[in-house]
Amino acid sequence: MEKIGIVGAGLVGSLQAILMAKKGYDVSIFESRPDVRKAKLLAGKSINLALSDRGWRALQAAGIDGDIREIAIPMYQRCMHALDGSLSYQKYGKDEQAIYSVSRGGLNQKLMNLADQYPTISYNFDRKCTDIDLKTNTLHFDNTATNQEEKHSFDKVFATDGAFSAVRFRMQKTTMFDYSQKYLDHGYKELVIPANEDGSHKLDKNCLHIWPRGEFMMIALANMDGSFTCTLFFPMYGEKSFDTINTHEKVETFFQKTFPDALPLMPTLLDDYFENPTSALVMVRCSPWNYEDKVLLLGDAAHATVPFYGQGMNCGFEDCMILQEMLEEANGNWNGLLGAYSKTRVPDGNAIIDLSLMNYIEMRDLTANKEFLLRKKIEAKFSNLYPEKWIPLYSQVTFSHIRYHKVIENGKAQNAIMEQVMQLPNIEANWDSNEVMAKMLELAN
Amino acid sequence: MEKIGIVGAGLVGSLQAILMAKKGYDVSIFESRPDVRKAKLLAGKSINLALSDRGWRALQAAGIDGDIREIAIPMYQRCMHALDGSLSYQKYGKDEQAIYSVSRGGLNQKLMNLADQYPTISYNFDRKCTDIDLKTNTLHFDNTATNQEEKHSFDKVFATDGAFSAVRFRMQKTTMFDYSQKYLDHGYKELVIPANEDGSHKLDKNCLHIWPRGEFMMIALANMDGSFTCTLFFPMYGEKSFDTINTHEKVETFFQKTFPDALPLMPTLLDDYFENPTSALVMVRCSPWNYEDKVLLLGDAAHATVPFYGQGMNCGFEDCMILQEMLEEANGNWNGLLGAYSKTRVPDGNAIIDLSLMNYIEMRDLTANKEFLLRKKIEAKFSNLYPEKWIPLYSQVTFSHIRYHKVIENGKAQNAIMEQVMQLPNIEANWDSNEVMAKMLELAN
Repeated sequence: MEKIGIVGAGLVGSLQAILMAKKGYDVSIFESRPDVRKAKLLAGKSINLALSDRGWRALQAAGIDGDIREIAIPMYQRCMHALDGSLSYQKYGKDEQAIYSVSRGGLNQKLMNLADQYPTISYNFDRKCTDIDLKTNTLHFDNTATNQEEKHSFDKVFATDGAFSAVRFRMQKTTMFDYSQKYLDHGYKELVIPANEDGSHKLDKNCLHIWPRGEFMMIALANMDGSFTCTLFFPMYGEKSFDTINTHEKVETFFQKTFPDALPLMPTLLDDYFENPTSALVMVRCSPWNYEDKVLLLGDAAHATVPFYGQGMNCGFEDCMILQEMLEEANGNWNGLLGAYSKTRVPDGNAIIDLSLMNYIEMRDLTANKEFLLRKKIEAKFSNLYPEKWIPLYSQVTFSHIRYHKVIENGKAQNAIMEQVMQLPNIEANWDSNEVMAKMLELAN
Repeated sequence: MEKIGIVGAGLVGSLQAILMAKKGYDVSIFESRPDVRKAKLLAGKSINLALSDRGWRALQAAGIDGDIREIAIPMYQRCMHALDGSLSYQKYGKDEQAIYSVSRGGLNQKLMNLADQYPTISYNFDRKCTDIDLKTNTLHFDNTATNQEEKHSFDKVFATDGAFSAVRFRMQKTTMFDYSQKYLDHGYKELVIPANEDGSHKLDKNCLHIWPRGEFMMIALANMDGSFTCTLFFPMYGEKSFDTINTHEKVETFFQKTFPDALPLMPTLLDDYFENPTSALVMVRCSPWNYEDKVLLLGDAAHATVPFYGQGMNCGFEDCMILQEMLEEANGNWNGLLGAYSKTRVPDGNAIIDLSLMNYIEMRDLTANKEFLLRKKIEAKFSNLYPEKWIPLYSQVTFSHIRYHKVIENGKAQNAIMEQVMQLPNIEANWDSNEVMAKMLELAN
């Protein structure tokens, strides 16, 4: 039975450990940081996450979805905050469909606790991966607790060590390995809307709140303790940017002018703004994700994306599940499996990056655009009438398991149809008429 | 006066050293290999190079173009070898215009000898760069002769250490550094057509010989000793590929069928094919090319391209010359210069990669295509009549100093015009008529 090494005890690494342990494998996980369950969490280091159907399905495969539901808050709709403070709402899907706000830290700890129930999973903290010898499949670590070097060999290595994966850096030096990293001009910073004194939420906790402002935006997701984690996505450089909004006075003036309804809810804004780091946003694509039958990249190590579709973690969890399915189909025979997996899955890793970029434009700009909102209403009505004929793009990504690269193809076809529908005379008034629906049906067939 | 360190004593590193020494700087060059002038050259490790106007102009700026002309063989035209052995020719430019065949090794040695005439340039061989500390601008080397580590700090570092630059690997880990490496499905292998017994060439030495075969091709460039270096560009994997043509018999059959007129000229084919390495072809793009005011990537380290436009070295030489020009315009003030240079030059580095890929298709496929050849004839005639109105794309790349990214824009405009001209009735018969030329003139205005 293969010995399995996992680099990175984050969300994807911990889930992959559980899935492998369920199949009977011995799993050793190595993590550069100390055990987060013993250390105080670093503030401002992670975006709140939105767990959706792809993630849930993988958690279900691991038999742990019930445990995770306890720490997840459903968000049924977007709540858009206009400049004048007025609110408008947009449902994510059908009535019961939601995405779920979870804190990265809380989820990670829960996954570790669940993994710890397997005697065949061992966590090794304070091990910073410095290299991998691909010939012998030997991982090299600095043990930051003892200041000593360690080497461990495995039959299979899963690299879940994130966007700046050390394992991938080594693979990058092998022939025929395609790789790209690209930074967004925008970065992000975490801010806070604290709970009311009675522990209740200051905003509707069952919404994902968005302040769309064209070139940038702020969002807020609820936490279990009554607070909201806000994330400001903002240009790194330029006229209005993290680079130029750099004094207490400028921050206050900017928020007063740009997010007037949020400012009174953020008493620690100035401290948060100047204490929390400004983080960059990187997109990583590579191919292949495997090295022979020995090493496989999973999650951000394989396909780091920008967070605007809330799919980074969901895609990483789906990575694990699809590998699990392929392993089952192969009756546990790993021969050639990692290469086949890479061929299958790389197009989806690339597609979710493309989709995430598209959704950034939608969130920061189009959610405040009338024509866009009308399109969404027409699509929603038609999809309700003919659910077999039309799944809105957002739902395909979030509430389906259609392969991401196929979702992009479907989205292009839908766009072409909507371009025609929006040209219909008086569409603003007639959008929910039978004629418009009949036209949609004709085009969608 | 700044102390300058250069990583890599290849073509671009050596030229950059001379240009800096001419300005009065102290220059230390570090090279991982032994001194090639003392060691025997490794066979089959480099493509023969085609030096053209951009390269010449940089050599002229360094005052050494005359020295290099002594080892360069002019090639005035392409000579295409059809399957039946028939030859057709295509001039590269106007009568006197040529690209020049030079051996990479010979050119490198000459450049080193010329650099050695400057007492302020020191070559340090057997120094493999392992890292750079960007804070202190300290280069780390393994001295492979003494097996010791060395560290050297400089005011400015120029990284000319090629497509797999160690300096760039470090820069890749800095925030906001965009990077991509992409391998072509095709690799290459060097082969030989030896000289006749009397030392003469077996083919016209003043041509670049091409055997275009659609999905792949072979080329041959003359050497000073009467031999030709042939390069087979061929898929790495697939039905017809380096992977499958893997026995003496298969190689002979393949060459007999595919390059029948070349086979008799290649008595050492089988030895060469199996002894020389199969090399991969990688394209590298990145941005920015500088790290603050300290480090600058030049040549392949900044923009490795595939060799199909013969512009890799020429672009690298032009890199050095443009930096020199900007330094002169700034009156020797380096403040902010490397960042400004990067902004200016990155679009051209990307453009030459795009152009090189386009030329691969042209060389392996279109040079055997009748419509393509007709288009080239029409363009050539019009360009002769109205040289101010039309510089053929190949000439813009090869015989001009128009910025590469501008060449691509020009090429798109020319393409749009030629699409229309090729639709004219009876264009095959009337291609050099006054009517066609008048139409070209109308469209080109």
